[in-house]
Amino acid sequence: MASIERIEHVARRVIRAKNEGHDVVVVVSAMGKETDRLVELAEEVDYQGLDARREMDVLLSTGEQVTISLLSMMLMKHGFKSESVLGRQANILTDKEHTRARILDIDASFLKNRLSDGVIPVVAGFQGTDDSGNITTLGRGGSDTTAVALAAVLAADECQIYTDVEGVFTTDPRVVEGARCLDEITFEEMLELASLGSRVLHTRAVEFASKYQVPLRVLSSFEDTPGTLITREDDAMEQPIISGIAFTRDEAKLTILGVKDVPGVASAILGPISEANIEVDMIVQNVAADMSTDFTFTVRREDYDQAMNILQNIAKNIDAREVSGDNKIAKLSMVGVGMRSHAGVASRMFEVLARESINIQMISTSEIKISVVIAEKYLELAARALHSEFDLAEVAG
Amino acid sequence: MASIERIEHVARRVIRAKNEGHDVVVVVSAMGKETDRLVELAEEVDYQGLDARREMDVLLSTGEQVTISLLSMMLMKHGFKSESVLGRQANILTDKEHTRARILDIDASFLKNRLSDGVIPVVAGFQGTDDSGNITTLGRGGSDTTAVALAAVLAADECQIYTDVEGVFTTDPRVVEGARCLDEITFEEMLELASLGSRVLHTRAVEFASKYQVPLRVLSSFEDTPGTLITREDDAMEQPIISGIAFTRDEAKLTILGVKDVPGVASAILGPISEANIEVDMIVQNVAADMSTDFTFTVRREDYDQAMNILQNIAKNIDAREVSGDNKIAKLSMVGVGMRSHAGVASRMFEVLARESINIQMISTSEIKISVVIAEKYLELAARALHSEFDLAEVAG
Repeated sequence: MASIERIEHVARRVIRAKNEGHDVVVVVSAMGKETDRLVELAEEVDYQGLDARREMDVLLSTGEQVTISLLSMMLMKHGFKSESVLGRQANILTDKEHTRARILDIDASFLKNRLSDGVIPVVAGFQGTDDSGNITTLGRGGSDTTAVALAAVLAADECQIYTDVEGVFTTDPRVVEGARCLDEITFEEMLELASLGSRVLHTRAVEFASKYQVPLRVLSSFEDTPGTLITREDDAMEQPIISGIAFTRDEAKLTILGVKDVPGVASAILGPISEANIEVDMIVQNVAADMSTDFTFTVRREDYDQAMNILQNIAKNIDAREVSGDNKIAKLSMVGVGMRSHAGVASRMFEVLARESINIQMISTSEIKISVVIAEKYLELAARALHSEFDLAEVAG
Repeated sequence: MASIERIEHVARRVIRAKNEGHDVVVVVSAMGKETDRLVELAEEVDYQGLDARREMDVLLSTGEQVTISLLSMMLMKHGFKSESVLGRQANILTDKEHTRARILDIDASFLKNRLSDGVIPVVAGFQGTDDSGNITTLGRGGSDTTAVALAAVLAADECQIYTDVEGVFTTDPRVVEGARCLDEITFEEMLELASLGSRVLHTRAVEFASKYQVPLRVLSSFEDTPGTLITREDDAMEQPIISGIAFTRDEAKLTILGVKDVPGVASAILGPISEANIEVDMIVQNVAADMSTDFTFTVRREDYDQAMNILQNIAKNIDAREVSGDNKIAKLSMVGVGMRSHAGVASRMFEVLARESINIQMISTSEIKISVVIAEKYLELAARALHSEFDLAEVAG
C-alpha cells in the first residue's frame, strides 16, 4: 500500500471480485513509508540493547490499522458494506514471540459471520494477539502469511497476493530480455525460487500455503493480468523441466586449504562462524588426498569481512595451510520439478556454461534445483544462455 | 504530545513521581500533528456524507497507540518496568457511539495488577471498546476524560493533567498583565470558566472529576510549577469572591424587535435557529410594553450570517418590526463561589464598567457567575479594570 491512490486501486479490485459473485476477505499491509516512519520514531527513543519487542508490536501494528480503516471507508464510499477487522478481531491467536510471532490458531467464525451479513471484511495483516490480549506481529512476510492463513481456515477458492510485480518470472526480466511470466508453478518450485532471491513472496507464506493446500495467485497491483498460480504438483497442468532461473549477487566465498581430514574438522570451522550469527549457505568439501582437504563455503556478502577474520583465526588453531576468499561471486540456480523425471539437466547446464567459457566454482544440488557459483561478471551471460537453452521464453505445454 | 523530546520530558515527570514513592498510571494523547495527519488521510478518501464513524475510530485511535509504545520504551530505557496499555486492555467499556462514545464501565483489576508488579502502565487516552470489541473514541477532551476516569476507579490521590499552560489563571495573561495562576479553584468555578472559553481543560473531564470527586491538578508540561488544584468547595482553603474572569470574542448578537408578546413566540424564533444546528448561548427578552417585546440572543460568530438569514425569514413570518445584529461583541464573565455569600458583586461589576464608560448590552447570571456582553473594542479595558477592582493579582487567603 503506497498511498490513497493505491487504496482506491485495491478497492476497485475488491469490488470487481465481489461483483463477480465471490465472497471477498481483504488482507492489507501498511502504506508505503508508514513502517519506516514508525521505526524511525522508535529509533529516536534510542532504546539500544533494550528488549522493547512488545512495544514495537504495539507501534508497528498501527500501520495496518490505518490502512484497514481507509480501505473500508473507500469500499463504503463505493456503496459496499465493509468493516475493518483487527488481527485480534479476526481471532488470529499467536504465540508470545513479539516481532516474529507464529500463528497458533484462527477461529474463522467471526469472519464467516461478517461475510454472511454481506460485509467485505478488511483485515489488518501482519498482526495477531497472544492469549493475554497483547498485540503481536508476525515479522517479515507477515501480511502474506495472514492472507494465506485466513484463506486456509475459510477454505477459500484462491488466495490472491497483490505485489509490485506481474507474477513469477522464468528469470529476472531486468537481466534476460525474454523472461516470461509463468502461468503456474508448484509450491516446491516457488519455495526454491523464493529462498534463492526472487523477492515476489516470502518463503513463509508459500510454506504455509503449501502445508494447507491453499491455491495462491501472485499478481500485479497495477496491471490487469492473471499473474502466476502457485499450486500442488498434482494440479499443475504443465510440468516443464525447468520453471525458472534464480540468482543472487549477495554472496561471498571463503576457502580454507590444507586442513587435516579428521572427524570434527567441519564443526571446528563452521562452529565459530555460526556463533557469530553469520548464515552459511553452500558448503563444499573436496575429496581428501594425502590426509588433507579443502573446505569452501558461502556467506552473505555483507558478512564477508567478519567471516574472513574468524576463518583466519580458525586456520591458526587447526594448523591449516592457507585461507582464501572471493566476494565477487554470484549464485545461479535452475529450479524445476521436471528435473525429477528428466536426467541430464545438470550436465546440460554445465555444457552451456562451458560453451560460454564460464568457470563453475561450486556446485550444489537438491531434488528440484541445481545451483552453481560463478564469477559475478559472468552472471548475466550465464542467465541468458541458460534461459535460451531451456526454452524458457516459449510458452510450454 | 508534540515529539520525541516531549515524550522524554513526560518520562522525566513520570520518573520523578515514581521515585517519590507513588504508584503512577500514565494516560497519553496522540503526538502533536498526528491526529491532523490521520484526519487528512480520511479526507483524501473523500467519504462525503458517509457514516464512517466506526472506521474513523479505528483510524484515529492509532495516534495514541503510537505514543504509548514510545513512552513505554522511553521509561524502559531509563530503567523502569513499563507496559503500554490500549483502551481495550485497560477495560474501558463504552457505548457504541463512535467518535463520541461515553464510558460505561472500567474494570480496574488489570491496571491494579500491573501496578502491583511494579510496572508503570502507559494507557492510551481517548479510546475504549464497546461490548463487541470494536474500538471507540471518546471525542473532544477524550484523553483528559480517560485520565480522570482511571483516577476515579483507581481511587488515585490526584489526577494531574499536563497542558501547555501553567495552570488556571485569574484571567487571560495575554490581556491582563497582573493575571495570576490560581493555587486552587472549585469544580463549579472551573466548569463555568471552561465553558466560557478558558481552554485549559475540557468541560467533560471536569464534570467527570466533579462527579467522582477526583482531585484534579492542571499543570505545565514544560515549567516545573505546582499548577492549579481543582477540588471540592469544602476542601478549598481559600474562597475569594471572584476566582477568575473569562471572556470570549467568538460571539455575535442578533435582535428581533417589535415581536407580539404571546405564548410560543420564543420557540417560533429559536426553533428554526436550533434546527439549523446553530448553538444559542445567551438569551434575553425585554419586559413587554404595548403588547410587543424585543428578543436578543447570541450565537458563535461564525454562525452569524446564517442565523441572520434565518431570523429575517422568521421576522416576516411572525410580523416583527425589525431585525438587527452585531458581530463585534464580546462576552466577559466573572466566576466565583464566593459570590454566593457576598452580595453586591454584580452591582460592583456594573459600577466599574460604568466608570470606564463601557455600555453593557446584555446581562446573564448564574449562582456563581455574572456574564455581560459589551462591544469587543472595550474587552481588554473591561478585563483589566475588573481584575484590578477585585484584587485578583493579589494572592488571597
